[in-house]
Amino acid sequence: MGESRHSNYSTIFKIITYKMITTKTIKIIPLGGVEEIGINCTAIEYDQQIIVIDVGLGFPLSDQYGVDFIIPNIDYLKKNKTKIEGIIITHGHLDHIGGLPYVLADLDFPQVYASRIAIELISQKLQEFELLDKVHLNEVNGDSILASGDFQVQFFKVNHSIPEAMGVIIKTPLGNLVHTGDFKFDNTPVNEPVADYNRIAAIGQEGVLALLSDSTNSFKKGMSKSESVIASSLEEVIKDAKGRVIVATFASLLTRIQQLIKIAEKYQRKVLIEGRSMDNSVKIARKLGYIKVNQELFLNPKNKIVLPDNKVMILATGSQGEDMAALARMTRGEHRSIKIQKGDTVILSASIIPGNDMLVQFLVDEISQKGAKLYYAADDMNLHSSGHGFQEDQKMMINFTKPKYFIPVHGYQSFLYKHAETAESLGIPEKNIIIPRRGQIIEYDGKEFKKGALLAVPPILVAGNTVGEVGSVVMNDRHQLANYGVISIIVNIIPKSDQFAAEIKIISRGFVYEKQDTAINEQLEKKIYELLKNNKPLLTNNLEIKLKEIIFNNIRRFIFQKTQSEPLLLIQINKIKL
Amino acid sequence: MGESRHSNYSTIFKIITYKMITTKTIKIIPLGGVEEIGINCTAIEYDQQIIVIDVGLGFPLSDQYGVDFIIPNIDYLKKNKTKIEGIIITHGHLDHIGGLPYVLADLDFPQVYASRIAIELISQKLQEFELLDKVHLNEVNGDSILASGDFQVQFFKVNHSIPEAMGVIIKTPLGNLVHTGDFKFDNTPVNEPVADYNRIAAIGQEGVLALLSDSTNSFKKGMSKSESVIASSLEEVIKDAKGRVIVATFASLLTRIQQLIKIAEKYQRKVLIEGRSMDNSVKIARKLGYIKVNQELFLNPKNKIVLPDNKVMILATGSQGEDMAALARMTRGEHRSIKIQKGDTVILSASIIPGNDMLVQFLVDEISQKGAKLYYAADDMNLHSSGHGFQEDQKMMINFTKPKYFIPVHGYQSFLYKHAETAESLGIPEKNIIIPRRGQIIEYDGKEFKKGALLAVPPILVAGNTVGEVGSVVMNDRHQLANYGVISIIVNIIPKSDQFAAEIKIISRGFVYEKQDTAINEQLEKKIYELLKNNKPLLTNNLEIKLKEIIFNNIRRFIFQKTQSEPLLLIQINKIKL
Repeated sequence: MGESRHSNYSTIFKIITYKMITTKTIKIIPLGGVEEIGINCTAIEYDQQIIVIDVGLGFPLSDQYGVDFIIPNIDYLKKNKTKIEGIIITHGHLDHIGGLPYVLADLDFPQVYASRIAIELISQKLQEFELLDKVHLNEVNGDSILASGDFQVQFFKVNHSIPEAMGVIIKTPLGNLVHTGDFKFDNTPVNEPVADYNRIAAIGQEGVLALLSDSTNSFKKGMSKSESVIASSLEEVIKDAKGRVIVATFASLLTRIQQLIKIAEKYQRKVLIEGRSMDNSVKIARKLGYIKVNQELFLNPKNKIVLPDNKVMILATGSQGEDMAALARMTRGEHRSIKIQKGDTVILSASIIPGNDMLVQFLVDEISQKGAKLYYAADDMNLHSSGHGFQEDQKMMINFTKPKYFIPVHGYQSFLYKHAETAESLGIPEKNIIIPRRGQIIEYDGKEFKKGALLAVPPILVAGNTVGEVGSVVMNDRHQLANYGVISIIVNIIPKSDQFAAEIKIISRGFVYEKQDTAINEQLEKKIYELLKNNKPLLTNNLEIKLKEIIFNNIRRFIFQKTQSEPLLLIQINKIKL
Repeated sequence: MGESRHSNYSTIFKIITYKMITTKTIKIIPLGGVEEIGINCTAIEYDQQIIVIDVGLGFPLSDQYGVDFIIPNIDYLKKNKTKIEGIIITHGHLDHIGGLPYVLADLDFPQVYASRIAIELISQKLQEFELLDKVHLNEVNGDSILASGDFQVQFFKVNHSIPEAMGVIIKTPLGNLVHTGDFKFDNTPVNEPVADYNRIAAIGQEGVLALLSDSTNSFKKGMSKSESVIASSLEEVIKDAKGRVIVATFASLLTRIQQLIKIAEKYQRKVLIEGRSMDNSVKIARKLGYIKVNQELFLNPKNKIVLPDNKVMILATGSQGEDMAALARMTRGEHRSIKIQKGDTVILSASIIPGNDMLVQFLVDEISQKGAKLYYAADDMNLHSSGHGFQEDQKMMINFTKPKYFIPVHGYQSFLYKHAETAESLGIPEKNIIIPRRGQIIEYDGKEFKKGALLAVPPILVAGNTVGEVGSVVMNDRHQLANYGVISIIVNIIPKSDQFAAEIKIISRGFVYEKQDTAINEQLEKKIYELLKNNKPLLTNNLEIKLKEIIFNNIRRFIFQKTQSEPLLLIQINKIKL
């Protein structure tokens, strides 16, 4: 898929007209991001060609015990890997790039197209996986046009919480598709241009067969808040701070980080960067010219700070209460040089990701106890804004592109349904709105889009260095273990001439509370001896499996009656062969 | 503690003046509710007398595996039970009454004072525990005055999300204490009077030594929303609904339930009550005259509904996505008569309790998929309001009571600190603000309030029918089990003349993913045989414990290297004695 800029629109248009007479179809297959936040990945197929948009990761639910993160299931892409023309990345956030290191080898390293910042961030990840040499990364920007086979791909700049976020226009012989990526419209953005209204309007003028649009905030009324509103609120708080200012945010919110550094410069505070990912983000932003400040603005983390407190701003990771991140360590007093104390102003400039609420709560409680002045999500202040458009942003996108078909993506199913309601309110007929499930083949035959087969593509759990499909048995066991603990019962059966001697060993872990264990263990032992006595024939006839079942059922019932709990029972009939 | 209404204020005042010359102290000891939401319980002690305010319960954190709920630690009260004059209940919510059935027997059944509704709700709980006959429940209201020994107790009506919520005034010889209970000020409440401004102002006039005030919403700016705003929004949505209306809310939000039934009556919808706790709430509200409607308004859940869809409102439990509650069953199509379908309007009129967010998400996704129109917390509509005052409510309470000392209660530590900031902004000096920890003795000697000893009162976990102190070992085991599963290894050592034969049995549950288990088990077996071979002397010398340790450490390291996970290892060296 070669890159050629500024190609001739009218030529492409002729090709489209010509191909309309074929019987080929467009298939749109969301492989992730339509039943969850994150794991964004969409395949777009025409004839023998596939374009993949984003390969992101997601984070586990609180009861997906032991899972580190989740990546899309690419079985379909693996089966069709020869068709893949390229992977297009809309922006550099993990929920759009994080799956790449896990899937590229399986897909024989297809071409990857991304913006400058995204390429930097992808490169960092690939380096960790020692894959950087093998991957073909191609830089694109808002003006790029990619052409390959029947596809033509163009981009349009949108606003988000990282610079260089782009929507994608995919021109096929059967019509133009638009995928917004993550977007909002920000008329007063900070340090980056306004979304490319002209390009978006032009494609609407040309005709859009289907719009795939970001549904993350489809329940939020009105227009999303501009980053410059956030900048003013932050400036207000920082201006008034008497002591040190410590701001925690996501390392990925490059736009926010830029603002904070500018505010620091304005109020003559030197900036200390804390946390590896934050440091990386700042390095990339400086390298690409998004942060243009003197090196002297930054404090060296190796040196002791000798400045007065009101001349210091610390930018740190850990806005989600992560135990090992810089902010938590400073709060607990475990940081090598910085301890949060009375006089400090601590700002958490980030929303709280569902599931992290209690982690954040514990952290802010401790920050308060240390005497620092605290600003965070519970505050009704404008210290954070979402990078995803609200209902009015979503309406603008629909009105700009005037799509014939509307396909909401990026979000939980209820978000997609709400987005569909918004689209319908703008006049898109219900039958032209397709709400996809994960793995849903949405097919266009030149006449209409229809829901086709539903591929089974359960997302892939990554735990430690184990990458595997969701093990539902494992997960169920972990639930039982988590809630009730485990009891291991070993019944040693030792042949004694024509008799048997039995010896029972019981260990429990995570079960009931320590004090009660001894008493229950004694009762269990007694119960098992009884069961052995009453079921002797099973032993002589080598029916240990039957015996095990009897013990299992009796013990389970017994424990439930005594404790109303259901620990996982590991029962081993250990028949010793001499 | 006898009840005598309309007693003479001036007499009491004389007593107070007289007793000022003693050297006795006031002790305020929060036993719960100051490092969390819920588990509210405060002891107030003067001389040989203790008054307890509320004995609530709380809900476990998502990683307190297997815990059903949490109650306050009453060790201090048990030790001093002869001093207890009575337990005062501010209102009938579980976070204020739910601990009662667990503690009353241990305290020799002291007198309990509560409002009519609270008494009904407490009675229900006590009945479940077969304790109703033993407990002395005394009805009080906004006009009651209790007098006993050195204490005088009065009440003042506040607004909250259940009728008859009250603040408490405790007059002691050393000064007046005010405990707000849960409160907000609602100038346009629904179906109940406005908070008793006059009584609160009067006590402020008389003089308040210390105010203990609700901090739940201390980060929220402005004034809390009135219930009548919520009533209008609900009416708006329900008026426009074309089909059935299904509203889920907390059974404890009696105020909300009253409103909904009134709206149903206005729009000629008959009401079906779904869920046992919802049914109980409506029964109590009707019995006490808080809901005055004709019996004919209610549909009999046993009969098939033959009315048109737009004549039906269903009031259900399950606003937190609870799996077995009415709303979830209707959504999944498992309810005996009602299935959520296209045309239905579903309203979740409740906030989402931290930790329940994903449960609610899954539920609303399914409701959307069924085609129902959905309104819930993510909506920016006024379909729910908190029963706890915001910053302006909190300021009003402080300005009304003009306390000398301010003690924020009810909430996480950061909420208390924020509330303290608000109090300071109104002119209360920092040294007169005391932010308590759980178990903190706050003592007044007639001159000043000081923080005294910190009692160790970790809250009590209730799991199944096991009520015990936090078992940290059990909890740690459960964490490990939840995240990594368990591997049980049995090493049978069988004496063979002067040699040993070893036989190894391995079972794992919840560990890695099924496919990989076999391979890892084989490697583990090989590794253990090797360890046995290299450590033979330990076997002959009966040093099995040492051997077990060696196997444990080696296997743990081996598994971590292979899988980066740390399953709980149960290792048994089973030396068979013949």
